[in-house]
Amino acid sequence: MPVSLAPPKPEDLLPVKGVMLGVAEAGVRKENRKDLLVMRLAEGASVVGVFTQNRFCAAPVILCREHLALERPVRALLVNTGNANAGTGEDGLARARRTCAELAAAIGCDRSQVLPFSTGVIMEPLPAERIVAALPRALAACREDNWLGAAEAIMTTDTVPKACSRRLNLGGKPVTVTGIAKGAGMIHPDMATMLAYVATDAAVSQAALQQMLTRAAARSFNRITVDGDTSTNDSFMLIATGAAGTNTITEERHPDYAALAGAVTEVAVWLAQAIIRDGEGATKFITVQVEGGKNEEECGKVAFAVAHSPLVKTAFFASDPNLGRLLCAIGYAGIPDLDAGRVQLHLGDVHVVKDGGRNPAYREEDGQRVMKQSEITVRVELGRGSAQTTVWTCDLSHDYVSINADYRS
Amino acid sequence: MPVSLAPPKPEDLLPVKGVMLGVAEAGVRKENRKDLLVMRLAEGASVVGVFTQNRFCAAPVILCREHLALERPVRALLVNTGNANAGTGEDGLARARRTCAELAAAIGCDRSQVLPFSTGVIMEPLPAERIVAALPRALAACREDNWLGAAEAIMTTDTVPKACSRRLNLGGKPVTVTGIAKGAGMIHPDMATMLAYVATDAAVSQAALQQMLTRAAARSFNRITVDGDTSTNDSFMLIATGAAGTNTITEERHPDYAALAGAVTEVAVWLAQAIIRDGEGATKFITVQVEGGKNEEECGKVAFAVAHSPLVKTAFFASDPNLGRLLCAIGYAGIPDLDAGRVQLHLGDVHVVKDGGRNPAYREEDGQRVMKQSEITVRVELGRGSAQTTVWTCDLSHDYVSINADYRS
Repeated sequence: MPVSLAPPKPEDLLPVKGVMLGVAEAGVRKENRKDLLVMRLAEGASVVGVFTQNRFCAAPVILCREHLALERPVRALLVNTGNANAGTGEDGLARARRTCAELAAAIGCDRSQVLPFSTGVIMEPLPAERIVAALPRALAACREDNWLGAAEAIMTTDTVPKACSRRLNLGGKPVTVTGIAKGAGMIHPDMATMLAYVATDAAVSQAALQQMLTRAAARSFNRITVDGDTSTNDSFMLIATGAAGTNTITEERHPDYAALAGAVTEVAVWLAQAIIRDGEGATKFITVQVEGGKNEEECGKVAFAVAHSPLVKTAFFASDPNLGRLLCAIGYAGIPDLDAGRVQLHLGDVHVVKDGGRNPAYREEDGQRVMKQSEITVRVELGRGSAQTTVWTCDLSHDYVSINADYRS
Repeated sequence: MPVSLAPPKPEDLLPVKGVMLGVAEAGVRKENRKDLLVMRLAEGASVVGVFTQNRFCAAPVILCREHLALERPVRALLVNTGNANAGTGEDGLARARRTCAELAAAIGCDRSQVLPFSTGVIMEPLPAERIVAALPRALAACREDNWLGAAEAIMTTDTVPKACSRRLNLGGKPVTVTGIAKGAGMIHPDMATMLAYVATDAAVSQAALQQMLTRAAARSFNRITVDGDTSTNDSFMLIATGAAGTNTITEERHPDYAALAGAVTEVAVWLAQAIIRDGEGATKFITVQVEGGKNEEECGKVAFAVAHSPLVKTAFFASDPNLGRLLCAIGYAGIPDLDAGRVQLHLGDVHVVKDGGRNPAYREEDGQRVMKQSEITVRVELGRGSAQTTVWTCDLSHDYVSINADYRS
């Protein structure tokens, strides 16, 4: 049961001019399952991506990097579920190349203008022939008004499709930003991968788009954790088709940059949070806010120490205001000169730790009240400076163990 | 149910000349429970310790460091369970000081010659008066032949007392090394603390003993993980009474150094492994051996990435030879220039990953056979050099979540 996350309504998802989406059942791993997505891009679209840092990155990630490095206009993205094509060596690369080549031939472009993505089991050969056989059906089904279908086609262990849209005006012209994602790199390295695709019909140069992507990733997908695991296939792609007819944003100082970057980040944050809300076994959505650090990096260390701690996470699952576990995680986060006596801790609106010790005014029943909520904010004040950061995570429940212990059976 | 760990037999635990152990029921948190240990040391004993790096370290840890820094001969160690005296500020220090002062008065030494240790709930005031009231009973019970009683008195959520002895000859004279420990820093930050005490009747200078301790800690307690959490109270103490009448070991080049250091490390490794075998909810004991690294540090990164991964740990719990999860953890361990194509992975005697991909000769039933065992060795070969390291961990089971979710109730 995801935490406060309903499937998107079709009417809430706005088409992006210049992006057509087609879905098919290729039978990659199971029959009768939408497992193939083709995204066709209008000519002139800018495309940028960030990928997993895992050294065992998958064949499609390697190809994406290769193709993007050639700087030819990207004309299509090809996504399959059911098989991650990771840990598959040269053979995996050949199979991924073949699917790109076939799609390129069908739409009349070079193989390098197609970007491949895979998610699913690791170390099994990609059934490229089944993907190729399904391509004509996916292409025939391509239309602009199909973001919900696309969000469904990339799901693996997700229980809810994840998609959202934002509308804004740039120079008096309406512009759309729509994105889809599936969970989750840090959750399922088997069904390996967090995949996210965000598209806008605004016109943005490749360089400016890359900046927007980096900023959005830093504030969204790089701020979430379920269990600290990072997958072999994680990819976050940002597409700008220019089909809305706006002025091209070429740099950060462009008058439209901030507004568009803001909308892109907003969509990315929404998707990242949706991944956590639908995290394996999640019963609580937890925001960890760290303030008063010397810099953002040390705030992040503390926030992730709290968010990764299995003991903190089981305490949230149990709705137990177990303050020691929170303090303990802050203490081992890796700030060697942290002055414990300056640390404040708030659980929701309750001031639980004052100057590094239990707040004399704190009453257990107040902590209990907050812990029972399904959305909880932990606020840590370090008392060292003015930097801050926010990380989102979920609790650690029996279902997490069940899902991961029984996953392949 | 601990993994292959039976309570020690009293006759297997050898007294250490110059160390007397007395146990009492102080009622620190619960009645009718041995919760107080006094270790009295003969005059002239050397004592060294390593302590938690957690910034929220407990009052007794602060006092231990203070007292040791004064370099006066330590005459007694005082350990209580039921209360960690952590997150308790100045008041906590005052209470710990008082217990030391009372014990010092009773045995006729300075307060700074007593070292205090506490383990139990965090952020609650230490009932110093109850500890003080029980001191005469603990002192009256002091005897050399009481290591099992001592091991029992320091247990918190441990299910089995942990203690072992080794015997060796130094210069023709019999020498004993006996140690006790309780789990575990990285398991219970509430019942906060891994505590370990190892004593020998060999004669060792403070400086040489410190070297032995550092080396033993690096190969034992710093090589284990249950869930990555590090407590506020972790302490590992090494005592050399000199009562066996051997020549004093003053430096690493001393002819007896290597033999004694080896025995001390052996005892520490045994105790560290016992903590893992008795880890919360553990059903498997897992050895992660990483070889072929450029240096020990990068081997440790890979070993701990594997040992910390909740996905790897649930796969062990489920006896599922889920290779992708292992590869994935190796890939994100933080070696940026790791050549995935050179990585080999063995599960027990089965070669599962060859040159970074699935070994063509690997059969799932072979992996399955190994995964069903209760003691499993994962061997990773990085193909980068000749450094190596070993880490021990356990699986992540339903019981881990239950124990930690229900802990305070």
